[in-house]
Amino acid sequence: MNSERPADAVPRHGGDLAFARARYPAFTGVWLDLSTGINPVAYPAEFLRIENRRLPGADAMSALLAAARAAYSIPGEVPVVTVPGTELAVHLLPLFFPAATVAIVGPTYGSHRRAWESHGHRVSEIGAVEEVPGDARILILANPNNPDGRVVSPALLAGHARRLAAAGGALVIDEAFADVAPEVSVRPYLGEAPAVVLRSFGKFYGLAGVRLGFVTGLHPVVGRLRALLGDWPVSATAIALGTAALSDADWRAKMRARLRRSTAALHKLLGEVGLAVAGSTDLFTLVANPRARHIHQGLAQEGIWTRVFEERGDWLRLGLTPDKTSFERFARALRKATSTATRG
Amino acid sequence: MNSERPADAVPRHGGDLAFARARYPAFTGVWLDLSTGINPVAYPAEFLRIENRRLPGADAMSALLAAARAAYSIPGEVPVVTVPGTELAVHLLPLFFPAATVAIVGPTYGSHRRAWESHGHRVSEIGAVEEVPGDARILILANPNNPDGRVVSPALLAGHARRLAAAGGALVIDEAFADVAPEVSVRPYLGEAPAVVLRSFGKFYGLAGVRLGFVTGLHPVVGRLRALLGDWPVSATAIALGTAALSDADWRAKMRARLRRSTAALHKLLGEVGLAVAGSTDLFTLVANPRARHIHQGLAQEGIWTRVFEERGDWLRLGLTPDKTSFERFARALRKATSTATRG
Repeated sequence: MNSERPADAVPRHGGDLAFARARYPAFTGVWLDLSTGINPVAYPAEFLRIENRRLPGADAMSALLAAARAAYSIPGEVPVVTVPGTELAVHLLPLFFPAATVAIVGPTYGSHRRAWESHGHRVSEIGAVEEVPGDARILILANPNNPDGRVVSPALLAGHARRLAAAGGALVIDEAFADVAPEVSVRPYLGEAPAVVLRSFGKFYGLAGVRLGFVTGLHPVVGRLRALLGDWPVSATAIALGTAALSDADWRAKMRARLRRSTAALHKLLGEVGLAVAGSTDLFTLVANPRARHIHQGLAQEGIWTRVFEERGDWLRLGLTPDKTSFERFARALRKATSTATRG
Repeated sequence: MNSERPADAVPRHGGDLAFARARYPAFTGVWLDLSTGINPVAYPAEFLRIENRRLPGADAMSALLAAARAAYSIPGEVPVVTVPGTELAVHLLPLFFPAATVAIVGPTYGSHRRAWESHGHRVSEIGAVEEVPGDARILILANPNNPDGRVVSPALLAGHARRLAAAGGALVIDEAFADVAPEVSVRPYLGEAPAVVLRSFGKFYGLAGVRLGFVTGLHPVVGRLRALLGDWPVSATAIALGTAALSDADWRAKMRARLRRSTAALHKLLGEVGLAVAGSTDLFTLVANPRARHIHQGLAQEGIWTRVFEERGDWLRLGLTPDKTSFERFARALRKATSTATRG
């Protein structure tokens, strides 16, 4: 049954194991979720006592913002707004512009396109920043890009930011995966160029459930976004965990090295089973293979959930395993799934 | 010093003790915060294990919505949207309407007015629902009202909801304090009338830091709000605590009775010291007295923080104390502050 209609196996989002369980009820063990780009080794925050009873005070909000400025190297004169997940910012940004031509460097995370289209903007997907049409007022890219890990040189972007803002538009850069590649962040190259930069907390720190992100840049919509979000946009949990994790430069450095090693081990394994890496960051790897759907199914039958893409049947995106045991479990399942797929 | 410029002692919001500490540095003990309408006896949620590492799944979101429907008696055919605090909904609702004449039944919580004005709507404050001007497209009221506890008969509201929605507008009812007065909720009276009702989680359950609320009603903006908020609008903490607390009808019933007793004890004390109750719910009480600012200062000097109002120098709003010890501490300080104020 599972193999008959593989398109049915394509959920809109990664990470929701309820879908996997419903689709593959024969597997009754503990699922291993490799379907997201969320770090499987979360920042250790169990020691924190969260005060859920009170509204977060101004002092706590200030401490969180200071930690974010330090972690993301945002100077004091550049505004930063705290958001309950950058997904909300993705949905709100289109409200601040009159109907415009929007160019999105794709293929990328689908929420950007849906958000702009649903507010009456005309969206076209372009293959690279260089292809931005002359009439585009808004240019959106993820850097590094999801799911293919492509990186645009940040030095190229300040000029786009200035030109688009001067014409009443904006350059929007989603740096959700820039924590593992800080050299990709556009901030040091922007100077006074008015871009809109999104930073996601949950992915690198492995705490997607706290719903925390930041929007920063000298573009005027950053201030409008702050006004729209009110005085208490994020939870006490987000403030406590965010402040602790973003202040911990030591954990950050060690985690970057660890994710680099994990990615290298994953790529070595992929090479051994004959799968080509189409792109990656140190939080996810994209495999391009004509048998991608079959490999996805083979892994799912072993309780390992990966990400496939409706529009690209040859793509399979893999997150990282949290530890050696789960890596070995994945390796065994992958060898089995790829040998089956090759024979199939 | 403290008594010279009492207007300086008026913060924009209650509940931020950092302001109190900065204003009254001579008090170095533990502050007792009576400046909010948040239940000081929080729903006991320490036993819950919160999974912060993953994005909340669709199953968890569904369970939260089901609990909210049960707690607020919302039938299945009426949409409900989960929001990270109703404050965000207050800010977003004005986006969905072209510039309109907005009538707010006041005096009330200031965010409504600021939000509608900042989006170019013309806002007028009216003294009662009956005074709504003929050209008003939007009518906003809190029921029960904050800070004076006034209640509008919910049976009167369905007609307004129908009339305003038919004209492209809306009736917006903020039921932030309706948990202590469920008979005030408009839901059973609405039928198919398309209102927009806000329900706040943090106040009655004493968990304001989790940032959770709901927007419900048959008005089309409820669906637009859902689309705008994206798929993961609230945190894992909000989902876990919200689902547990909203499902607990037994705790809810006992807490209503307890808050009623606490409010009766507070009113008895106020009578003993000669302070008139201008209005109340079972989560806060409004005192009207020409010496209100002086009483506020006297209490603050004893480390007890209450709410005063810039525009009404004769008002003092008091939240409830969490236990007998703090009630007695408050009673002593209030007797002292009122006798000083009387003599002063």
